[in-house]
Amino acid sequence: MAGQRALSVSRGNFPEWYQAVVREADMAEPSPVRGCMIIKPWGWGIWERIQAVLDRRIKETGHENAYFPLLIPLSFIAKEAEHVEGFAKEMAVVTHHRLKKGSDGKLAPDPEARLEEPYIIRPTSETIIGDSFSRWIKSHRDLPLLINQWANVMRWEMRTRLFLRTTEFLWQEGHTAHATEAEALKETMLALEIYRSTAEDDLAMPVIAGEKPANERFPGAVSTFSIEAMMQDGKALQAGTSHYLGDHFARAQNIRYQNEAGELVYCHTTSWGVSTRMIGGLVMTHGDDDGLRLPPVVAPQQVAIVPMLRDKPEDAALLEYGEQLVKQLRAKTAFGEPVRALLDTKNIRSAEKRWNWVRRGAPLIVEIGPRDMANGQVTFMQRDTLRDGDKVKSLSMARDVFVDGVPALLAEIQANLFAEARQRLNSNIRTDIKTFDALADYFGAGGGEDEATEFKGWVRAAWSRPEGAELEAIDERLKKLKLTLRNVPLGQSKSQGTCIFTGKKAVEDVLIARAY
Amino acid sequence: MAGQRALSVSRGNFPEWYQAVVREADMAEPSPVRGCMIIKPWGWGIWERIQAVLDRRIKETGHENAYFPLLIPLSFIAKEAEHVEGFAKEMAVVTHHRLKKGSDGKLAPDPEARLEEPYIIRPTSETIIGDSFSRWIKSHRDLPLLINQWANVMRWEMRTRLFLRTTEFLWQEGHTAHATEAEALKETMLALEIYRSTAEDDLAMPVIAGEKPANERFPGAVSTFSIEAMMQDGKALQAGTSHYLGDHFARAQNIRYQNEAGELVYCHTTSWGVSTRMIGGLVMTHGDDDGLRLPPVVAPQQVAIVPMLRDKPEDAALLEYGEQLVKQLRAKTAFGEPVRALLDTKNIRSAEKRWNWVRRGAPLIVEIGPRDMANGQVTFMQRDTLRDGDKVKSLSMARDVFVDGVPALLAEIQANLFAEARQRLNSNIRTDIKTFDALADYFGAGGGEDEATEFKGWVRAAWSRPEGAELEAIDERLKKLKLTLRNVPLGQSKSQGTCIFTGKKAVEDVLIARAY
Repeated sequence: MAGQRALSVSRGNFPEWYQAVVREADMAEPSPVRGCMIIKPWGWGIWERIQAVLDRRIKETGHENAYFPLLIPLSFIAKEAEHVEGFAKEMAVVTHHRLKKGSDGKLAPDPEARLEEPYIIRPTSETIIGDSFSRWIKSHRDLPLLINQWANVMRWEMRTRLFLRTTEFLWQEGHTAHATEAEALKETMLALEIYRSTAEDDLAMPVIAGEKPANERFPGAVSTFSIEAMMQDGKALQAGTSHYLGDHFARAQNIRYQNEAGELVYCHTTSWGVSTRMIGGLVMTHGDDDGLRLPPVVAPQQVAIVPMLRDKPEDAALLEYGEQLVKQLRAKTAFGEPVRALLDTKNIRSAEKRWNWVRRGAPLIVEIGPRDMANGQVTFMQRDTLRDGDKVKSLSMARDVFVDGVPALLAEIQANLFAEARQRLNSNIRTDIKTFDALADYFGAGGGEDEATEFKGWVRAAWSRPEGAELEAIDERLKKLKLTLRNVPLGQSKSQGTCIFTGKKAVEDVLIARAY
Repeated sequence: MAGQRALSVSRGNFPEWYQAVVREADMAEPSPVRGCMIIKPWGWGIWERIQAVLDRRIKETGHENAYFPLLIPLSFIAKEAEHVEGFAKEMAVVTHHRLKKGSDGKLAPDPEARLEEPYIIRPTSETIIGDSFSRWIKSHRDLPLLINQWANVMRWEMRTRLFLRTTEFLWQEGHTAHATEAEALKETMLALEIYRSTAEDDLAMPVIAGEKPANERFPGAVSTFSIEAMMQDGKALQAGTSHYLGDHFARAQNIRYQNEAGELVYCHTTSWGVSTRMIGGLVMTHGDDDGLRLPPVVAPQQVAIVPMLRDKPEDAALLEYGEQLVKQLRAKTAFGEPVRALLDTKNIRSAEKRWNWVRRGAPLIVEIGPRDMANGQVTFMQRDTLRDGDKVKSLSMARDVFVDGVPALLAEIQANLFAEARQRLNSNIRTDIKTFDALADYFGAGGGEDEATEFKGWVRAAWSRPEGAELEAIDERLKKLKLTLRNVPLGQSKSQGTCIFTGKKAVEDVLIARAY
């Protein structure tokens, strides 16, 4: 396989490459249900790891998990005007609660079991959770109320892509209520920081955190913040959002508390979420032409061990050698947890197993044969730096030295992947584009899918923070170039110069990019 | 509070008591969505613990988690005749994918967004997972295929009760495919054993594992096995089921493999599930008149620490003392995991906090006041043996002695709760009832809800294993006494005597009980 790659398509054809990785790494596949995916064990294992690390961060910051109904009464969703406007067009509606055989012998919804009020499958849970908040919160002593939910949600999407945009997806949604705007804003930023650290420290995916422009706000929010990651085709992926909802939802749902002076006051609420979309970001950040490369923190298995079995009696001893190795590895600690190691005993050829683990992106892939066993050693590949030129790099090491070194090796792989992605992000944000014409020139006239294959990166430009009709007009102009405003990065020093769109005095920088 | 109990209702009024525990322990509450519940943080914490221990057992036995769509096409559900018959009457049907404002200004399903084929919200996933199996399985090398899914499901129930029977509930569902009947049956029994050990070793809830009679089988199954637990009102709770599906679903969905001889053969499949219902079983097994008592293995917090704060400057030192204690406890290991300890700093009275933890069933409740701090000690209550007569038992101990002793104390509480429940189960199964008349006499004429308050336990009787019309007639007779056949316990020695129902020669014993 030297010279050849483990995938039949390279990143040069990015959309096809993405599909190939997801398929060949056995992560997910389309389902017979329109726009919904089947998450296969390896993909699910990654989601379990993301859940574990993110859940820990959410709990460490004082939030508690709870669970609310899948269905939302139609009247609830209608309560917040902008909110329903934003979601009405993509809602799955439950209208009946029973099936019945018709005169043609076919099953159909039973007309006598029509619901008086239809239900919506939650596209997000502000309204159903807000209803609980209005009952749970009475006094300032009940605040802040810090709730998180892990759940499936559904938005009827017309164009779907595995992990990136699916009709059903899995996520966590934080919902909190606070006494004051200041506290709610602090919470909004705390959630954003949780997402930044999850993305960067756990997924090794560098991001830029910032505020979304008004036209990209969550329906019903006062302000929306996001983390944006740069994919290997130069597009941006919004990987998590955090919303300050003001008292909009509190007013719509009567979420009030009695303050210390005895007055009834509306709460300030927030919501924030990240989803299975993160997995798509992982693929497009770290994948290479051999498949996925997983940061060890979120790899379901960190060390995959392939025994070179030959259907001979000696196999038993080799399996025993492998099992001992697994046991030794699991006794080691990496990133504060036992090392995750697996002996692959599947009944297929060793070479096929090796390449399966390469495509799946296991950080360390160990091969053990009779000679390794005889010499008390292991042979292994490091997935982040798999090749030297075209040639696969294979290393040999005494077994005990390897076992002792695995935690450091995993930490190195985690750091390597992050550094590589960070380098890509840092060196691909143009800051020298000052006019809309220059912007249009840089990104080309747009149109067609072809331009996706040419890496363009992002543009960071000064702007005057327009709103309303002025912003909408800009959005339209950008759309023609297939561009969007991503966010206004946090922590800026005062901007210089004039707005790239309006020519007015600029107040800050905004990121412009093609996006998923 | 000596003499008084922490709940306003005792187990003498069991249904009301159950509701009071669920409410007062802050576990769950009804929602505005018909038959659906809101699982509050403490109830959710218990579910997270059950998930953690059960998931570990499922993975240790070679199963992999995956995720399949929430929705099932109508045509899929119709494929297995008995299956659809069993579920058609309780299915939530999705018929539209968009809302629209009508001429009256009200939101309604958009007639132009009616789905050509309606979808069902999964009541269980045999059909949608079977569809994947039919694509994934090609050769005998692909078998066994061992998949598990954690998911929400929906069955439109008419009478609901928190945790025990709700329209939406959460569960895991195992789905496996095998080459032979023998292997599938072995898997069915393995899943049952996983459930038995989870119930007994983790939830401290003794169960009897056995086969369901034909009339109680899962729709479409060849055989169904269950674990049955005895609640404190003498009723049975089916706490988990495991089904051998033969090749019924394989034939309906074309799940075939090529055997070593090159022939295409239908697989034998299984499915098995336990749900949030387990939590109801936990309440009714271990609860007392002061609320819930949690087995430490599934307690979200094993040690709750209440600082006796007085709104004085000394509070800071006491909080520091408490935080040190939490840190020391978390460094200890119980049941192979760090001890879960929490310092309750909520802004409410200490006495209220203490009773909240009693009602929630934290295994150890520690109170620390200035005197404890001065003496380097702790004062604590053990929730499993809270009272001596009416009086609450409070113990004092040097802090370090307590910390070192906590793992053993937790193990003792776990064992105590199990022994108590085991004793109840063992001593409340009558085996001396030989005729239907004697059975009717024992359970009373039935009717009304009142008899639920008189503890009756179960009857284990010899029977001839009738099927078909004969079994249906027996089922009808039992229904009049509000009784059901629970299961035929495993591991029986050959039964003696005659069938309690038919008078024929008995072949085995069956359990008869009132049930949830």
